[in-house]
Amino acid sequence: MTIITGVDVYDVRFPTSLSADGSDAMNKDGDYSAAYVVLTTDGALRGHGFTFTIGRGNDLCAEAARQRAQPLIGRDVDEILDDLGRTYRELAADSQLRWLGPEKGVVHLAMAAVMNAVWDMAARRAGVPLWRLLVDMTPEQLVDAADLRYLSDALTRDEALEILRSGLSSRTARIADLEDRGGYPCYTTSAGWLGYSDDKLRRLLQEAVDEGYHHVKLKVGADLDDDVRRLRIAREVIGWDANLMIDANQVWDVPEAIEWVGRLAEFKPLWIEEPTSPDDVLGHARIRREVAPIGVATGEHGMNRVLFKQMFQAEAIDFCQLDAARLASVNEIISVYLLAHKFGVPVCPHAGGVGLCELVQHLSIFDYVAVSGSLENRVTEYVDHLHENFVDPCIVKNGHYLLPTQPGYSAEMHAETIATYTFPTGSYWSEASAASLAAASVGVPGSVSTG
Amino acid sequence: MTIITGVDVYDVRFPTSLSADGSDAMNKDGDYSAAYVVLTTDGALRGHGFTFTIGRGNDLCAEAARQRAQPLIGRDVDEILDDLGRTYRELAADSQLRWLGPEKGVVHLAMAAVMNAVWDMAARRAGVPLWRLLVDMTPEQLVDAADLRYLSDALTRDEALEILRSGLSSRTARIADLEDRGGYPCYTTSAGWLGYSDDKLRRLLQEAVDEGYHHVKLKVGADLDDDVRRLRIAREVIGWDANLMIDANQVWDVPEAIEWVGRLAEFKPLWIEEPTSPDDVLGHARIRREVAPIGVATGEHGMNRVLFKQMFQAEAIDFCQLDAARLASVNEIISVYLLAHKFGVPVCPHAGGVGLCELVQHLSIFDYVAVSGSLENRVTEYVDHLHENFVDPCIVKNGHYLLPTQPGYSAEMHAETIATYTFPTGSYWSEASAASLAAASVGVPGSVSTG
Repeated sequence: MTIITGVDVYDVRFPTSLSADGSDAMNKDGDYSAAYVVLTTDGALRGHGFTFTIGRGNDLCAEAARQRAQPLIGRDVDEILDDLGRTYRELAADSQLRWLGPEKGVVHLAMAAVMNAVWDMAARRAGVPLWRLLVDMTPEQLVDAADLRYLSDALTRDEALEILRSGLSSRTARIADLEDRGGYPCYTTSAGWLGYSDDKLRRLLQEAVDEGYHHVKLKVGADLDDDVRRLRIAREVIGWDANLMIDANQVWDVPEAIEWVGRLAEFKPLWIEEPTSPDDVLGHARIRREVAPIGVATGEHGMNRVLFKQMFQAEAIDFCQLDAARLASVNEIISVYLLAHKFGVPVCPHAGGVGLCELVQHLSIFDYVAVSGSLENRVTEYVDHLHENFVDPCIVKNGHYLLPTQPGYSAEMHAETIATYTFPTGSYWSEASAASLAAASVGVPGSVSTG
Repeated sequence: MTIITGVDVYDVRFPTSLSADGSDAMNKDGDYSAAYVVLTTDGALRGHGFTFTIGRGNDLCAEAARQRAQPLIGRDVDEILDDLGRTYRELAADSQLRWLGPEKGVVHLAMAAVMNAVWDMAARRAGVPLWRLLVDMTPEQLVDAADLRYLSDALTRDEALEILRSGLSSRTARIADLEDRGGYPCYTTSAGWLGYSDDKLRRLLQEAVDEGYHHVKLKVGADLDDDVRRLRIAREVIGWDANLMIDANQVWDVPEAIEWVGRLAEFKPLWIEEPTSPDDVLGHARIRREVAPIGVATGEHGMNRVLFKQMFQAEAIDFCQLDAARLASVNEIISVYLLAHKFGVPVCPHAGGVGLCELVQHLSIFDYVAVSGSLENRVTEYVDHLHENFVDPCIVKNGHYLLPTQPGYSAEMHAETIATYTFPTGSYWSEASAASLAAASVGVPGSVSTG
């Protein structure tokens, strides 16, 4: 018998604000961060998971994850991993922690980090990548793992089973199909951060075209004239056959979103992403009606499955961008995929940040093989940042994620990364702090953001 | 010039789980807690605020409040208090902390704690109770303080001003009217916790009737037969002219809520409270359509103004139960009152917990005097717990909150309370821990919950 002996939690922060990587109209100076969880056992088995934040407060998620994981310690690994639905429900049932959400914010991000580590451990125990673990599960096993609470007015357990059973016989053929295609299709956001100059934008867009991308995404929403100029550059570089997406990162009220997007319609964006508050189901529905045929996309801040249920019920979105580290891990994500399929909305997961690309590649493959059976209107985000910190980084070629082959959820970070970027004790931050103090002592403005 | 010199934050927990006070179908063993904030200055002025939780994770809120408050330290008190809208927006604009919500969960609870303390300080500086500070503000000042972001599709700034201007000339008369009535009407939940025996229920209901209450509330949702028996007892004691409310604390899916409430309809409840997920706007709207004429109430877990906006737009609720420590203080609460008034929904604030009664009495008075001008269908929750821990506790007589008279937001706790109940170092918890260890060492099951 193998026992879970502990949980190690790390507050890992990367100084991305120095290069304006990740800058947008709402978030100008993020330091991409992960509250990183390692579940340890008395054997060789480990489980790695994380949630993603942009700096300050990452310590709150780390501490919440430590508290969330306590019920796992001392338990038999097989008991925890043989019924992942029961394990999830046991952790979620802590009514004191639940009060702090419920099912949203820091405690939900922490639930994602912990259960992502549990799923990583389950895939490692089975010796397969997570996507393979999922597509090898029966419809009953998947539905038992899914969190269907509060969803039965939109999706019953029987409907969920029916969706999964209908695609069961063709799973093997669809895996082969993905391998033939060179993986799962993706798009790039690496070119379009708001803090980049026009020259850098033009160069990166050309690189994206050269690398085989048919979709690129630009940040908008800070200044209308800037947006017009940048979208004109984008169309000059990528032409009119490729797809151009725009992302406002929640800066607008509903009427403002409708007017602003109307002014950008000439550039024929495929979607406007996060036009307003991520909580505003009815607001998104109205924006969608008024900016059609431009699609509406949201989800990276979609707090839980109840929000997505309503987005589908209200016909509020054309693209569902669920987040692998904000929803409470695979248990909740299965439910959102099933809901999306029932309502006919394609899922194009949010990625980027720290390690989100590593996670979502597994989810997109699962969706195609076991749930939707479709690639139509589906494309998964890819951002070329920070992959070097992962032991099993995602591999993108010709605008496709290659199918992961190593056991687990691709969530493990290098030991050197932890040693360097753990905040504030890692070598990077302690040296930055020393340099900042030294600069201050000689009257030079501190040149280092300390998160 | 007076300067804000620091923020002291306390993780205060009361061992309420020992007596089943506060027990309901979702939360069986809460230890009522407050993440308590004291803003200090280099003068005598202080600001006291808190958010409310039920135990574990209260430390997360306390630490988040400490981080939230940092931008206030070293600042001129007058600069911070003369423009409370600007102060709120400055704290809310921290994009790194925003990422952890946005505007929900731990970071939003922490925002409530900090800005509650700022409003307390503002009322103390003016030498008046908070409700008086608010009703002495001009419509322009109130709208400038309100957080109207993401609301303009439902409420414009001009509409907000118009609402406040229309009642301006009669504010003085309505204050006098409240004084004549003996305060603001309230109802009691003290009788109806789920963990109480039938005998205790019957006794407490009779006491409520004797004390002049016309509204009582019972917890439901754990067992249908129990609910039928308890509601029968309630009607036997209070008769059919008094109002009976029921509260399920989010335990049902939407179809289950409709069916269960239907089985309790014979007891003619005024409202069903929290029938399902607090995030489910469309679910509440459907429940409301199907259980009419029983009303639907929710809001104690209403995460922010965007959720309430949608509850009103979707005609999902008959009673709005906003929470003074979950919404981000008076700044966000003003907006919800204005929205509620525009959509014709009465606000009956959630209270109980730790100190929520102390806060909401000010808000209800503000609503009557400056916003709605109505008491119709309005009744504010009152729970007779833990008031002895406050320096200026609310006073309830004949089913009415008396108008507070002391300066501030009634949020200050006694120093002895802090010394006793700060977790885990306060005298209560350190002794409980010692007793628990002693019991464990002689083989007796630990009788003390340690939160």
